[in-house]
Amino acid sequence: MKKIPLPAIERLSNIYGLLEKLEKSGIKTVSSTQIGKNINATNATVRKDISYLSMPNVAGRDYDIAKLKKYIGQDLKLFQPRKACLIGLGRIGTAILAYEGFKEEGFEIAAGFDVSLNKIEMIVSQVSLHLIHELESIIGSKGIEIGIICTPPEAAQDIANKLVRAKIKGIINCTTAMVSVPEEVIIRNIDYTGYLRIVSALISQKK
Amino acid sequence: MKKIPLPAIERLSNIYGLLEKLEKSGIKTVSSTQIGKNINATNATVRKDISYLSMPNVAGRDYDIAKLKKYIGQDLKLFQPRKACLIGLGRIGTAILAYEGFKEEGFEIAAGFDVSLNKIEMIVSQVSLHLIHELESIIGSKGIEIGIICTPPEAAQDIANKLVRAKIKGIINCTTAMVSVPEEVIIRNIDYTGYLRIVSALISQKK
Repeated sequence: MKKIPLPAIERLSNIYGLLEKLEKSGIKTVSSTQIGKNINATNATVRKDISYLSMPNVAGRDYDIAKLKKYIGQDLKLFQPRKACLIGLGRIGTAILAYEGFKEEGFEIAAGFDVSLNKIEMIVSQVSLHLIHELESIIGSKGIEIGIICTPPEAAQDIANKLVRAKIKGIINCTTAMVSVPEEVIIRNIDYTGYLRIVSALISQKK
Repeated sequence: MKKIPLPAIERLSNIYGLLEKLEKSGIKTVSSTQIGKNINATNATVRKDISYLSMPNVAGRDYDIAKLKKYIGQDLKLFQPRKACLIGLGRIGTAILAYEGFKEEGFEIAAGFDVSLNKIEMIVSQVSLHLIHELESIIGSKGIEIGIICTPPEAAQDIANKLVRAKIKGIINCTTAMVSVPEEVIIRNIDYTGYLRIVSALISQKK
């Protein structure tokens, strides 16, 4: 298999999520144009991205959703189970903690962390909860690969540094702070203001 | 000004967010390569996107952050204040309600809605809170353009239909449900599973 460029991997991951939703709605096939509209890319880009997969070419026809999903999942290794941990058990952190849907996607929230012993004792969860100072040892012992930062923004960089020291492979930053990590660590930011900005810019363009 | 393609608008919005964070860190200039790494695009794409702006060409040099930010903001009309409303006052909804950072970006959460009168009476907020049946009248009277859906997934499509009837221009769907809206309504999904998937795929590729 060819090495897939990083932006294509990101789009293919999004295509996978879309296919899953379409499949749940009982839809069987989808065109590159429909995919493109949903993930905000041209249909040429969608076809190019799909061409990186090990799937045999289906030029000129709609994609079979189950098949395309299988190839993306295989080639991007999405079927491999992965453990994540949550740092910061405030409103967004506990909402993520309570979310049941990760498991069917192969993701397990394997631990939660907070600075407040009170919070750790009060929150009712299936997930084991710990104080921050246990972060490094638990990431190591449980084989956790991804850290989701939901702390106040002031704490985000410090937590990211701790995660990097614990040899985390990927970080999802749900705070508004800008977080720096070494080149080898994957990082993505979930930024509500960013989404408002995109929707606003698209509204303006439509007029 | 040329009409900017939609994927370029989305990337330029993300570039704006990045420039803002860099500016806050005291950084003055940035290269297209650095931008590309942060928004997950090639530097050729970044330069092409920036070429759509009304900004004079600065071939071969780093971009002045303040200047680039000004042109993106102007051309994408990001400086225009906009009102949004929140539907669903659970954990994520109330976290967004309490977030102070939207205002400095020109966004105002002008109303919150829930089905539970109890919640509306219990939640302490500067934002005026209402029962769902008031959604249409309040969107109209306050000039709200964007709806942020934070309800349980089962309710998301019904709320989206109500928002569309109220002539909303854009929707941010924070639920795991797939929501359909007419062509003229902008919609973006905030999907935590999707972010986990992207980070996982990128971790796999790195190995």
